[in-house]
Amino acid sequence: MFVLRTRGTKLQSVKNSGTKRTDKMTSADSGPDERADDSVVYDLAADCTLSDISEGEQYHAAVNGVVDYGVFVDLSDSVSGLVHESNLSQSYDVGDDLVVKLLEVRENGDLSFVPADPDDYETVAVAHEYKVAETGNLGDQVGETVHLEGEVVQIKQTGGPTIFHVSDDTGVVPCAAFEEAGVRAHPEIDIGDVVHLVGVVEERDGALQVEATSLDALDGDEEDVVRDRLETALDERAEPHETEPLVEWPALEQLFPDLRDIAKQLRRTVLESRPIRVRHHADGDGMCASLPVELALKRFIEQTHQDPDAKRHLFKRLPSKAPFYEMEDVTRDLNFALEDQARHGQKLPLLLMLDNGSTEEDVPAYENLAHYDIPILVVDHHHPDPEAVEPYTDGHVNPYLYDEDYRITTGMMCVELARMICPDITEELRHVPAVAGISDRSKANAMTDYVELAESEGYSEEFLTDMGEALDYEAFWLKYDPGRNLINDVLNVGCDDEERHKELVSFLAERARSDTEQQLDAAMPHVQHERLASEAHLYRVDVENHAYRFTYPPPGKTTGEIHDRKVQETGEPVITIGFGPDFAVLRSDGVRLDIPEMVSELNEEIVGGGVSGGGHLVVGSIKFVKGMREQVLDALVEKMADAELDEALQSTTVGHQQED
Amino acid sequence: MFVLRTRGTKLQSVKNSGTKRTDKMTSADSGPDERADDSVVYDLAADCTLSDISEGEQYHAAVNGVVDYGVFVDLSDSVSGLVHESNLSQSYDVGDDLVVKLLEVRENGDLSFVPADPDDYETVAVAHEYKVAETGNLGDQVGETVHLEGEVVQIKQTGGPTIFHVSDDTGVVPCAAFEEAGVRAHPEIDIGDVVHLVGVVEERDGALQVEATSLDALDGDEEDVVRDRLETALDERAEPHETEPLVEWPALEQLFPDLRDIAKQLRRTVLESRPIRVRHHADGDGMCASLPVELALKRFIEQTHQDPDAKRHLFKRLPSKAPFYEMEDVTRDLNFALEDQARHGQKLPLLLMLDNGSTEEDVPAYENLAHYDIPILVVDHHHPDPEAVEPYTDGHVNPYLYDEDYRITTGMMCVELARMICPDITEELRHVPAVAGISDRSKANAMTDYVELAESEGYSEEFLTDMGEALDYEAFWLKYDPGRNLINDVLNVGCDDEERHKELVSFLAERARSDTEQQLDAAMPHVQHERLASEAHLYRVDVENHAYRFTYPPPGKTTGEIHDRKVQETGEPVITIGFGPDFAVLRSDGVRLDIPEMVSELNEEIVGGGVSGGGHLVVGSIKFVKGMREQVLDALVEKMADAELDEALQSTTVGHQQED
Amino acid sequence: MFVLRTRGTKLQSVKNSGTKRTDKMTSADSGPDERADDSVVYDLAADCTLSDISEGEQYHAAVNGVVDYGVFVDLSDSVSGLVHESNLSQSYDVGDDLVVKLLEVRENGDLSFVPADPDDYETVAVAHEYKVAETGNLGDQVGETVHLEGEVVQIKQTGGPTIFHVSDDTGVVPCAAFEEAGVRAHPEIDIGDVVHLVGVVEERDGALQVEATSLDALDGDEEDVVRDRLETALDERAEPHETEPLVEWPALEQLFPDLRDIAKQLRRTVLESRPIRVRHHADGDGMCASLPVELALKRFIEQTHQDPDAKRHLFKRLPSKAPFYEMEDVTRDLNFALEDQARHGQKLPLLLMLDNGSTEEDVPAYENLAHYDIPILVVDHHHPDPEAVEPYTDGHVNPYLYDEDYRITTGMMCVELARMICPDITEELRHVPAVAGISDRSKANAMTDYVELAESEGYSEEFLTDMGEALDYEAFWLKYDPGRNLINDVLNVGCDDEERHKELVSFLAERARSDTEQQLDAAMPHVQHERLASEAHLYRVDVENHAYRFTYPPPGKTTGEIHDRKVQETGEPVITIGFGPDFAVLRSDGVRLDIPEMVSELNEEIVGGGVSGGGHLVVGSIKFVKGMREQVLDALVEKMADAELDEALQSTTVGHQQED
Repeated sequence: MFVLRTRGTKLQSVKNSGTKRTDKMTSADSGPDERADDSVVYDLAADCTLSDISEGEQYHAAVNGVVDYGVFVDLSDSVSGLVHESNLSQSYDVGDDLVVKLLEVRENGDLSFVPADPDDYETVAVAHEYKVAETGNLGDQVGETVHLEGEVVQIKQTGGPTIFHVSDDTGVVPCAAFEEAGVRAHPEIDIGDVVHLVGVVEERDGALQVEATSLDALDGDEEDVVRDRLETALDERAEPHETEPLVEWPALEQLFPDLRDIAKQLRRTVLESRPIRVRHHADGDGMCASLPVELALKRFIEQTHQDPDAKRHLFKRLPSKAPFYEMEDVTRDLNFALEDQARHGQKLPLLLMLDNGSTEEDVPAYENLAHYDIPILVVDHHHPDPEAVEPYTDGHVNPYLYDEDYRITTGMMCVELARMICPDITEELRHVPAVAGISDRSKANAMTDYVELAESEGYSEEFLTDMGEALDYEAFWLKYDPGRNLINDVLNVGCDDEERHKELVSFLAERARSDTEQQLDAAMPHVQHERLASEAHLYRVDVENHAYRFTYPPPGKTTGEIHDRKVQETGEPVITIGFGPDFAVLRSDGVRLDIPEMVSELNEEIVGGGVSGGGHLVVGSIKFVKGMREQVLDALVEKMADAELDEALQSTTVGHQQED
Repeated sequence: MFVLRTRGTKLQSVKNSGTKRTDKMTSADSGPDERADDSVVYDLAADCTLSDISEGEQYHAAVNGVVDYGVFVDLSDSVSGLVHESNLSQSYDVGDDLVVKLLEVRENGDLSFVPADPDDYETVAVAHEYKVAETGNLGDQVGETVHLEGEVVQIKQTGGPTIFHVSDDTGVVPCAAFEEAGVRAHPEIDIGDVVHLVGVVEERDGALQVEATSLDALDGDEEDVVRDRLETALDERAEPHETEPLVEWPALEQLFPDLRDIAKQLRRTVLESRPIRVRHHADGDGMCASLPVELALKRFIEQTHQDPDAKRHLFKRLPSKAPFYEMEDVTRDLNFALEDQARHGQKLPLLLMLDNGSTEEDVPAYENLAHYDIPILVVDHHHPDPEAVEPYTDGHVNPYLYDEDYRITTGMMCVELARMICPDITEELRHVPAVAGISDRSKANAMTDYVELAESEGYSEEFLTDMGEALDYEAFWLKYDPGRNLINDVLNVGCDDEERHKELVSFLAERARSDTEQQLDAAMPHVQHERLASEAHLYRVDVENHAYRFTYPPPGKTTGEIHDRKVQETGEPVITIGFGPDFAVLRSDGVRLDIPEMVSELNEEIVGGGVSGGGHLVVGSIKFVKGMREQVLDALVEKMADAELDEALQSTTVGHQQED
Repeated sequence: MFVLRTRGTKLQSVKNSGTKRTDKMTSADSGPDERADDSVVYDLAADCTLSDISEGEQYHAAVNGVVDYGVFVDLSDSVSGLVHESNLSQSYDVGDDLVVKLLEVRENGDLSFVPADPDDYETVAVAHEYKVAETGNLGDQVGETVHLEGEVVQIKQTGGPTIFHVSDDTGVVPCAAFEEAGVRAHPEIDIGDVVHLVGVVEERDGALQVEATSLDALDGDEEDVVRDRLETALDERAEPHETEPLVEWPALEQLFPDLRDIAKQLRRTVLESRPIRVRHHADGDGMCASLPVELALKRFIEQTHQDPDAKRHLFKRLPSKAPFYEMEDVTRDLNFALEDQARHGQKLPLLLMLDNGSTEEDVPAYENLAHYDIPILVVDHHHPDPEAVEPYTDGHVNPYLYDEDYRITTGMMCVELARMICPDITEELRHVPAVAGISDRSKANAMTDYVELAESEGYSEEFLTDMGEALDYEAFWLKYDPGRNLINDVLNVGCDDEERHKELVSFLAERARSDTEQQLDAAMPHVQHERLASEAHLYRVDVENHAYRFTYPPPGKTTGEIHDRKVQETGEPVITIGFGPDFAVLRSDGVRLDIPEMVSELNEEIVGGGVSGGGHLVVGSIKFVKGMREQVLDALVEKMADAELDEALQSTTVGHQQED
C-alpha cells in the first residue's frame, strides 16, 4: 500500500480540479467528499518505488516508448510498465501524458497497465515513504540506503566528489555527491540550505560518510518544519552538561552560570560547524586554560562530526606573545579567516580569548573584527575593563566582575568550562587547576584543595611547580607556535607516555631554573635599592643593560624573580621596577600602587613622555618613549614613595607585562 | 571518400618506389603521372577510421589473425576486415604484410577484402581527416572528441593522470592523459613541444578539460607551420585593448605607448603560461597600483586558461617592506621560483615591479636575476636611474622619463595599464586613481578630475582620504603578507559587501589617525626648531628616542606628519629631519635639497660615516653608521642652510624612506 | 603435488588427534608413525590453489552450497568442487565441515569429490607454496604476482589506498592495500610488524609499487626467522663502501674508521626508513659539508626505496644561524618531528649535526632530545667538549679527538663521508674539499693537493675562493632557508647549467666583496690601535656603532676581514676585537689567547658581568650584559696584554662568533 502522508513534513496532497491531461478526458470540478474511489488519480513523486503502488489504482503516467505491441509508460523515475496494444484505443507519442490503472504486478516484477479515463478525478500527490535517519546514529546502518534531512553547513569540492556536510538534530555527517571527478555536484545547493538527501552509509577510514544518490533543497512548509525541528534540537544539544565543581569553592561556583553560557555557545558553534579560533596568553596559566578547552572541544567535535578531519578544520589555537590582542595578530587572524572562507567554503570563525582579552587594550582588535561575522567570547582573570570590552563580546567571564580577583585563575575556570563541554575528560584534568594556580601564584584558599586533588593523582607539589616552570619555558621557546604535541607532553593532557612526561618536566624545569640563575647572577649585582618614605623597599634593575636579552627568562619574568627574592629576603613591603629602554615592569608586595591611576597621572604630567600602560594594584607595566626614560622613572618613583602600605596586597605574575 | 591532405599541416603523401611487401609482389619505379588508378596503394595512418576508406581501393594491410575461413587484416588501429579463404591463393602468418582491395563494406559494418597484387604501384599515405578545434572555444563541444594542435606549456604529474597544458592561438586548456595512477604519460613529450592531441572535451568543476586519447609531437614541416601560426596568433592576441584614458590628461597620455608595451608583454606572458610575480611598494599608492593589475591579469588568465587553478599558479603578489628590491627579497623570490620549477614543472616567472624598482638600489637584485630566464618589467614614479636600471629591464615606465614627476602616481598609471589588459574591469576602478593620488599627495592638476570621477561613483573626497589612510594602516600591520581579501575590502576592488567596505575604511582610518595622534603627542614636544640662514625653518625630531617604536605610524610617516603640520603652521619654507640611530628621513617644502648630491658630498667629506641614501629634491632618506650620527646630522644641516629656496617645490610622501 | 613445508618459515604441520568433524566420524588417538596413508587429512591454507592438491588425497572441507544434485565444498579460498548427490549418504547444511577425497580434476578444471570417513587420522596443514621476491629487485616482475616478507616501516593513509612500506633485506617498497577510498586497510597491522604480503608489481610514475591482494602479520617461529634474516641483511647492507681518500693525507685517514661508523649508521637509518634531519653551520664549510651528504643520502634513498617521494620525506636539511644548536631550534625541530609522527605515521628522526654540534653549548638542546627516540650524530671540526657532548651522541667525529685541528674542515670530512655512503657521486665532489678549505682558511698541507684536484676539474684557485665567498653571501641572505636549488647552483653539486654556475658565482663573490668594501670604508677609520706589552698589535672596532647593521657582512665577518687586513699590513702578531653592545668577536694571529680560560676568569672576576662565551686559542666570541661592556672589554684587553706570543698560531674563521 502507498502512503499519502508519510510524515509531518512530507505531505504534498493537493486537491485540484482534475484537468484532463489528454484530449480523451473531460474535466469537471466537484467537492472532494462526493468523490468515488475511482475518481482518485495518484501522482507519484520522482523517487517513488514499487512499494508505493497498488494494483487497481489509477496513476498519472507519461509515455516513454512506443513499440509494436504497445506503449511503455513512466510513473516515476523507477516505476515503469507496459500498456499492451490490445488495450489501446488510440495512438500515443513519446512524451504524451495519460492516466493508467495498474492491472497487475507480474511475477518477474513487470507492471501491466491499462488506460483509465475517469471523467472527474482528484489528483493526490504521493511522496515516497521513507524514514528519516539520524546523522549521529548511522553506525549500524553501514551499507544501507538512508534518508537524511538537515542543513548544509559546509560544501567542499575535492578532486573527486563534492562533500556536503549535513547537520541535523543529532550530528553532522559528510555526504559525498559525485558528478565527475573535481566537478561541483548540485551547484543549486548552497550553504544554509535545508535538504533531503538519500544515500548509502559507508565507513571510510574509521568514520562514516554518506554516498549521496539524490540531494534536493526543501522549501516552503517542508523547509520550515525541518528548520524548526533543527533549531529546537540545536538549542537542546548545545546545552552544556551539569557538572559538579572539582573542589567546593563558592567563589568560583558563582561564575558557573556565566561559564555555562560560554560552554553552550561553544557547543552550539561546534554543532553549526563554525570554526573556533582560540587566542591565549602564552604562559603557564594560559596553557592550563587552553589545553583543557582544546581537548573538550575536539572530543565534542569528534562526537558530533563524522568527518575525522573536522577536528583540525574546526579548531585552531594560537598563543599571543603580547599580553593583549595586538593589531598585528588580529590582522593576521582576519586575513586567514577570509582566506579559509574564500578557498575552503568555511564559515568565518568564533574567537575565544583565554587568559587574555578583558582589557581596553584588546578593544582596537575587537573593533576590527566587528565588521565581520566573528563572535567573540572571553574568559580571563586579568583586571577587566568591562565597559570597554563588552560592547564587542558575546560572552565575558572574569572573576573581577564578581568582586573576586586574579586568584581564580583562567586555568581553574577553563577546567570547569571544559568539563561542561565534555565531562568525560575530567579524569585527565584533575591536576590542571593546581598547576594553573601555582603557575600564576594564586593565593586562593582553594589552592590547598586543588593541590590535594593533584596529589591524589600522584603529583607532588614540587612537581606541580616544575610543570608551571616547564610550561613557561616551552612557551617562551615556541614563540608563536602552539606546539601541540610538546605542550601536551608537558602538561600531561592527551600525553601517552607518563615516563616521558615526568622526565621532560624535570628537565625543562631544571633548565628554566638554571637559565634564571644565570640571568640573576648577571642582574642581581646591579639591582639598586632605596628606602621609600613609606618605609617600603624599592628595587630597580635595568633589564636591558644588566640582563641577557632575547633569552629566557625575558624581562618581565626576570623582574618578577628578583622581586620575589627581595620579598623573601626582607619580609617587608617591596616594590620592584625592571626597566628597559622604553618600558618598565612593576611588581609590589604590601604596597597599593594603583598603576592605572599612576599611568594616567604620568601621561598628563610628563609632556612628550608618551606614557601608557596597564595593570592594577600590585602588578603592571608602563611604556614610554626612550628619550624620556629618566623623567618618567623619576616621576614614577616619586609617586611610589607616596603609595599607601597594605599588607594584604601580594604580588602576582598576573599583570600586563612587557615580555620580550 | 578519403582525403589525402586534410589541411595545410597534415599532408604526409610520400611517393616512393613500391616495395613489394610480400614475396608475391614485384616492384618497379615509375613517375606518378603515368600511373593507372589501380597502381595506387593507400597506407592508412594509425588513427584512420571507416570514413577514410572506399570500396574498390587498394590498401597496405597486415595479417592479425588466421582462421579456417580466411585471414583477418588490419589497415589501421580501427579498420580491420576479412579476406575469405576462397580468395586466398597462399597461406599467411600473423604479422605478414600484403596489399588488399576493399571489396565491400557490409550492412553490419564488416569489411570484406580480396588480395591485390599490383605489379607496380605508388604508395600514398593517408592521414585521418580531422578539423582542428580551438582550445578557447571548446564550450559547446563538451562530450565530443576533438583534435587540438598547440604548444605544451606546462606538464604536471598528478596522483592520477598527467596534465598537459596545451596552448594554441585561442587559449590554453589542460589535457589529462592517463597511463596509470601517478604515472607520467607520454614521457616523450616535453614542455615547448608542438603536439597533435585527440581527446574528449569534459567539464570539470565548471571548467573545461580534454581527456586525451592520443598525443603526438609534431616535427618537420608540420611543426613549423603550427609554430608560425601560433606565434602570429600569440602576437595578435597579446595586443592590448585600445582604451580611452579615464580623464583627459596629456601628461599621462604621453606614457600610453610605454604602458601599452607593458600590457602587451604581460598579456603575452599569460598566454605563454609563464607565471607573473608582482613586487610592490607596501603603501597606499602601491596597493592602488597592484590591485587593479592583479584583477586585470586574473581576469585575463580566466579568459585564456581553462584550468580554474591557473589564476593561483600564474599570479603572485607580494609587498616589499623596503622601498627597493632588497637582496633578501630577491633571494627568497628566486629560491621559490626554482623550487616551483623543480617541483611543479612551471616556467621561471616574469617579475613586475610596481611603485618600486626604478632606482640604482634595485640593481643588485636585478643582477642576481640576470643569471636566470626571468624578465623584469617596471612601472614606478620614484625618481629613476634609467642608466643603471634599464640594462636589466624589458620595460620601464616612469613619468620622469617624460619630464613629468611623481605627481603621476603609479596607481594612476596602473589603472590605465589594467584597463589595457582587460577593459571590462573599468567600472570597478574609477575611484582608484583618486585614492592613489590622495594617498601619495599628488599635486597634479588632473587630481580634480580624478576626484570628480570618484565622486560620481559615490565617494566623497573625505572618504577617499580615509581609504588612503586605511590602506597604509593595513599595509603596515600585514607586514609581508599580501592580505588579498582584506585589502580588496578596503579598496573596494573585487569586494562584495559595500557596507562592510565603508565601515571598515572608516574604522581603519580612524585608528590610523588616533595612533598617529598618540605618536605625535609623544613626539611633538621634542621637535627642535631652528631658522636656517636661508630663512627656512628646520625641524628635527629623534624618532628613535621620542616616538614609539614598532608600531604605527613608523618613523618615515611620523616625520612626514610632523612636517605637514609645520608647513601648515608656518606657511613658510620648511625642512624636517626625522632621525633614528643610523638613519634620517628628510622632507622639505619650498626648499631645493637635492638629496642625492648631499649624500654624495657627505659620503666623501665624512670619513667613516658610511653615508648612503636615496631620494631627490624634496624627499629622501640617508643611512649612516650609528656612531657617526652627530657628525653626519651636523654636516647635513650645514648643507641645508645653503639650500636654495624654491616655492614651487612641494613635499610628497614619495621618497625612499626608512620605514621600520 | 603439494608441499608441506615450503620454506623454513612456512611449516605449519600440526599433529593432532583427529577429531571427527561430523557425527559420522569416530575419533581415536594414535601415534603418527603407525598411520596408513589414508589416515592423513590435509588442511589447506586459505591461499592454497589447484597446484597444492592431488587426486586421491583427503582434505578438510566446508559446505558452501547445497543443490539438488549435490553439495559444493570449499577447501581454500580458491579451491572448491562438487560432491555429487549420488555419493552422499546424508544431508548437509551450508557451513558443515566434512572430510572429502579428491576424485578427479576434470578437463575443464572442475573438481569432483567424494566424502571420506577415516576412522582415525592425522591432520597436516598445507601452506601454499611460494617463492619470496625481493623488494629491491622487482623491476622485471612488473605485472606479476609476488610474495614479499619483510618489516612494515611506515603506514600512510591516502585518500585512496593505505600504503604499507615494506622493508626486506634488499630494499623498501610501497604496497597499496585498498579497502575503500580513504579507509585504513588492515587495521590489525602496525609499524614494526613482520608480514607476508601477496600482490601484483606495478610501475607508477617510473617507480615500483605492489598492489597488495593479501597481507598477514607473521608470528612465532615464522616471525623470528624472518626477523633474524632481516637484521643480518640490514647490518650487511648498512655496511659503507670501501673508498680510497681523494688525496693522500694520513691526518684525515686516521678519522676514516669513525667516519665509516657514521656512514654505516646513516645507511642503516635510511634502510630503516627513519627520517634524517641535518642541522648545519650556515657558512661555506657548512654548505660544503652538508650538500655532499645530502646528495649521497638522497641517492642511497633512491636506490633503496621504491617510493619516489621517499627522498623528500626521509631527508631534511636546515642551516642554523647560531654557531650552536639553540634551544629555539631544537624546540622547533622536536615540534615538527612530533607533528610528522602524529599526522604522517613517520618514525622520529635521527639528527645529524654538521660543522656544528661538538661543544658544550649544544648540550641543552641534546638534553631536550634525550627524552625522545632521536639518535644524534655529529661531524664537526670546532674545538670540541667531548665529555659534555658524547653522553648524548651515538657518533662524534672531530679532528681534535685525534690531536688534529680545525684545518681538517667538516667539508673535507663530509666529502669522504658522502663517498662512503654512495661512491657514485665522487665525480661531482672533487672540487668541494678545496672550496671548504679555502672558505674556512684551512692551512692544512693537504690544501695544495685539494686545490690541484679541483684545478684538474677546471676550477682555478681564484674561482674556488669566489665560490667560498658566494656560499657565505647566499647563506647570509637565505637566513633559515636551506635554499636547495640556489646553493646547488653555487657549489655546482647537482647543478645542471655549468655556465650559469660560473656567472652566478662571479656575480655573488663580486657583490660580497663590494658589500664588504662598503662596510670597511665605514668601519676602518674607527678601528683603534694599541700596542700591547707583549708587542702584539691590538685592534678594536665597535661593530654596532661603526658598521652597518643587518646587512652583509655581519659583525663576525667584518671583524675577521679587518683582522686579516691588519695581519697582512703589519706582518706581526695581531689581536682584533670587534665588539657590539653585548658581545665581542675575537681573532688573533701569533698570540695564544686561550679564550675559554679568559672567559672563565672574566666571569669570576667581573661580578654581574654575565660573561660567557666559547672558542679556543685563536678565535672565539664572548657575551656579556650590555651595561658592563666597558669593564669586560678593559679586563679582556688586560688579559690579552699578558698573552704569550706564538708565531705558529694563525687565525681562522672557525670559531664561535656572534653573526647577527
